[in-house]
Amino acid sequence: MFQTFESHASPDQGPPRLAALRDLLRAEGLAGFLVPRADVHQGEYVAARDERLQWLTGFTGSAGFCIVLPDKAGVFIDGRYRTQVKAQVDLAVFTPAPWPEVKPGDWIKDNLSGGEIGFDPWLHTEDEIAKLRSSLENSGVTLRACKNFVDAIWPDQPGAPQGLAFVHPDALAGETSAEKRARLAEALRAQGQKAAVITLPDSLCWLLNIRGADVPRNPILHGFAILREDGLVRLFTDPAKLDETVRAHLGPDVTTEPPSAFVPALGSLQGPVRVDRTTAPLAVSTELREAGIEVAWGDDPCRLPKARKTAAEVQGMREAHLRDGAAMVEFLCWLDRQEPEGLTEISVVTALEGFRRATNALHDISFDTISGSGPNGAIMHYRVTRETDRALHRNELLLVDSGAQYLDGTTDITRTMALGDPGEEARVQYTRVLQGLIAISRVRWPLGLSGRDLDPLARFALWAEGQDFDHGTGHGVGAFLSVHEGPQRLSRISEVPLEPGMILSNEPGYYREGAFGIRLENLIVVQEAPALGDNRKQLSFETLTFVPFDLRLVQAEVLSPAETRWLNAYHAETLAKLSPRVAGETLDWLRQACRAI
Amino acid sequence: MFQTFESHASPDQGPPRLAALRDLLRAEGLAGFLVPRADVHQGEYVAARDERLQWLTGFTGSAGFCIVLPDKAGVFIDGRYRTQVKAQVDLAVFTPAPWPEVKPGDWIKDNLSGGEIGFDPWLHTEDEIAKLRSSLENSGVTLRACKNFVDAIWPDQPGAPQGLAFVHPDALAGETSAEKRARLAEALRAQGQKAAVITLPDSLCWLLNIRGADVPRNPILHGFAILREDGLVRLFTDPAKLDETVRAHLGPDVTTEPPSAFVPALGSLQGPVRVDRTTAPLAVSTELREAGIEVAWGDDPCRLPKARKTAAEVQGMREAHLRDGAAMVEFLCWLDRQEPEGLTEISVVTALEGFRRATNALHDISFDTISGSGPNGAIMHYRVTRETDRALHRNELLLVDSGAQYLDGTTDITRTMALGDPGEEARVQYTRVLQGLIAISRVRWPLGLSGRDLDPLARFALWAEGQDFDHGTGHGVGAFLSVHEGPQRLSRISEVPLEPGMILSNEPGYYREGAFGIRLENLIVVQEAPALGDNRKQLSFETLTFVPFDLRLVQAEVLSPAETRWLNAYHAETLAKLSPRVAGETLDWLRQACRAI
Repeated sequence: MFQTFESHASPDQGPPRLAALRDLLRAEGLAGFLVPRADVHQGEYVAARDERLQWLTGFTGSAGFCIVLPDKAGVFIDGRYRTQVKAQVDLAVFTPAPWPEVKPGDWIKDNLSGGEIGFDPWLHTEDEIAKLRSSLENSGVTLRACKNFVDAIWPDQPGAPQGLAFVHPDALAGETSAEKRARLAEALRAQGQKAAVITLPDSLCWLLNIRGADVPRNPILHGFAILREDGLVRLFTDPAKLDETVRAHLGPDVTTEPPSAFVPALGSLQGPVRVDRTTAPLAVSTELREAGIEVAWGDDPCRLPKARKTAAEVQGMREAHLRDGAAMVEFLCWLDRQEPEGLTEISVVTALEGFRRATNALHDISFDTISGSGPNGAIMHYRVTRETDRALHRNELLLVDSGAQYLDGTTDITRTMALGDPGEEARVQYTRVLQGLIAISRVRWPLGLSGRDLDPLARFALWAEGQDFDHGTGHGVGAFLSVHEGPQRLSRISEVPLEPGMILSNEPGYYREGAFGIRLENLIVVQEAPALGDNRKQLSFETLTFVPFDLRLVQAEVLSPAETRWLNAYHAETLAKLSPRVAGETLDWLRQACRAI
Repeated sequence: MFQTFESHASPDQGPPRLAALRDLLRAEGLAGFLVPRADVHQGEYVAARDERLQWLTGFTGSAGFCIVLPDKAGVFIDGRYRTQVKAQVDLAVFTPAPWPEVKPGDWIKDNLSGGEIGFDPWLHTEDEIAKLRSSLENSGVTLRACKNFVDAIWPDQPGAPQGLAFVHPDALAGETSAEKRARLAEALRAQGQKAAVITLPDSLCWLLNIRGADVPRNPILHGFAILREDGLVRLFTDPAKLDETVRAHLGPDVTTEPPSAFVPALGSLQGPVRVDRTTAPLAVSTELREAGIEVAWGDDPCRLPKARKTAAEVQGMREAHLRDGAAMVEFLCWLDRQEPEGLTEISVVTALEGFRRATNALHDISFDTISGSGPNGAIMHYRVTRETDRALHRNELLLVDSGAQYLDGTTDITRTMALGDPGEEARVQYTRVLQGLIAISRVRWPLGLSGRDLDPLARFALWAEGQDFDHGTGHGVGAFLSVHEGPQRLSRISEVPLEPGMILSNEPGYYREGAFGIRLENLIVVQEAPALGDNRKQLSFETLTFVPFDLRLVQAEVLSPAETRWLNAYHAETLAKLSPRVAGETLDWLRQACRAI
């Protein structure tokens, strides 16, 4: 079992730990300290040693940060975690702050009249600190890079992870590491840059066609790299994590050095050196500048090439999704045959992981399954624990958002199911959410549009009824890498033009706090649209996920003819693709689930 | 009759005029000259004396420019005019260039290896020249402000217009000029600016609650103004255009001076002076800078306040639209009773203007009616002339895009009608266009979105079939002012947040060159959305235009239930609003046209 259900948070430990931190800050002459969720790699999943935010506050969400001041400690959380945070932190000493509505700079100015706030320059990006500094101008409050004072008071802080790296086959990557390095080095030369610093582990893994095991859920290797304009790569990671096979795969053009060699290596570079101000630790650019080396701000050179998946990667994702779809269908059929009262949210998670394990191909789950029944479905990124586990009830909705890591691809799927008859209101809302998913699935668009331009299509049916959902419509997804990957998104704030090969989630939702939640999610990949109509050059999405939607929750009479056609075609394709992969009563169930409406 | 059908273009005069211009340029040591369509006020309708582009090239479109070089003369036109330009210029000497796809700077570099290109600094904005200069960097080609050499070779160039100004009642404006001036002056003081230069005639008219008669179609007064931080206004316009009533209305806080006083007045100002770099002539900022006065770039201070219509202006627009709607219904009923073969495009225009005149309230038409039958419907901004006039034919489509200026409001409406049975393909496309119009009409959205975010909704049904239309979905509209007004738009390139009171057109279309054109257009006004659903703060559109759509062209079976509900509600409301305003067989026709489907 990959997933666990322990509550790692210790809200009761919050007050003494916070007090200890404040004592130390006072001794250092600091008025405050920033405690981010991020690690040095700015990833969403962090190693146990980097769970500083959780250790200090109790909050276990995948994003957020704490600003510790002498009399107040703000826990900044986004729309997904408004409900969760209240249950996880001691509200007597921690104050939740809705983010990004409340700006950290404004909050600091409201709560501190002057003094220095410390931060660990390895855990924050140049961009982040520059923005915060600018918002604090003329406030009397300044920021000071310093050592990490949470680490200083964390007696049993775990050590760095030691996961073994392994080779990601060229056949699945679709491009050899040497080809990728040559391509990126050429781009560096074209910009007159001597080297680029790579700090994102998934960029590293993509560039070298390797994978790792340093954090749960994401098959990534922790490390830094320097790509030179001649295509050579210096990789900085614990040598114990690289066995002979990996070293042989990396070849002579990739040198490996221990992490301690990274900072000295930065100081010995020739500039200009490309650094990504939005993802690299501030410490990287500081080290370069202090050594007198010119910093050239620019994107992580792997980010966009990685986002444009190769034909082999897309093919791997297709295969992974059919495998995963069959497991999901086994699960949904099983669920339908149970008495809801006999199940809890945890038993649902356990059963689903079991069906995925039965594929004999499961490398990991791609994130902790969200299994929210009834009102828990409204908690957008709910992670069930022994404490919150809830028995299912007849006539409620069950929301299950889950995914798998297979060697050939990463999946991420959400379905919301009727347990018995959840009533007309549930059908009304489910249908509006489904209309949003269908709109994104169907859309064709002219070249050059970004996720921002398509996002409203997923919301139109909800907007028309005075409703909305408070998260983006979709995130980028890696190919046997992180289930959340940039830069593409389907979101009001995404200006990155969509390009063929980019994989995204399509996951509109509707949440009624304290009552129920609905989310429906397929993965989709941008493609050149098939010729049609006036043969304008257009892009469209190919759907990767094939698992039935719960037709008991669809108001057929509300759908447009085109929406009904899409839904029926999707179910016909699902049946055609999955029926060779299931049998017996599961096949019977699938046929019924894929009926035309 | 306001509209005329003469072809003002003289394509045959193009070659000799171009040769004369080149002779003069050579004598002045210039390699080229820019001939814009714009006048000093950057308006869409220009006075006869400013029709330089048309006089030189023959092209009569409402936007475009010519770049004259020694061996080539490029006529730059946007997507609306690709077809029209080929018929209007002598292609032996003029080369049409698709704009903005072909960038003027690139085109110049491709066709000229070095030298100076002249331009009249009163006809170009700072922004325009700065962009062109930057694109010509290191090319050997430079730009030089100079006198207007087209005027120099135009022997019978008409004089400046002499239209009389008149008062626009406060009751229709909803805010007195004194209130507007005080409000804007306060904004200037808040920004530390001593004055603002106003060069847009509709800004001038809005600020002073006056109207004028200097160009056709737009009730504007040509002039410049300087608004001071104390709220006083210096108005520069021909004094003969201001009678006693207007002078009394303007009062002591608005001084009037002849146009010749404008440049000296600029030179005597105290800075910083706000100038709009996107709308003011480059000559304005040049004069200021040469006099050592600080220029503060900023929006024309009237632009956004003018766009947010007052309650009185919206009410006036509603009334104007019902009056205009009744005239349109008389027209459509009349059209339906004619034999198509007995009509031409011109007789359609004439009849429609007659029905509008019969309201006894028509001040002017708001633009030259576009009456395109059959293939002429595909020419997006077709203006029929005696030469192009075409007999209507049974089983074709007729596209009529027209509008009126009434004292209480400006209208702009497009309907596409079936003459007989234009066939299934026409119904298919008409329905897709209608779906786009309905989507914009129905949408509710969260605060902060701009026209860019909503534009895709109007195209979704067309995009889904590999189709699109090559113009924006909508433009801003003035209240008894210009029918095209900024800054708001429904367009891929519009980042201006939509705000209550902004009036826009909603006009998706579909065009098949050489075959037919479809466009459907209503005017809409942004409002705070009525409470609904979760009572989220949302905006929505109120529809201003009430005229039936041609139900013979609607494929009812393609519409979604929500689309059908909208269409039936729209027709029911149209019938309720207009039936008190028509009678007899027109009322019978209206009842039939507004039937539920």
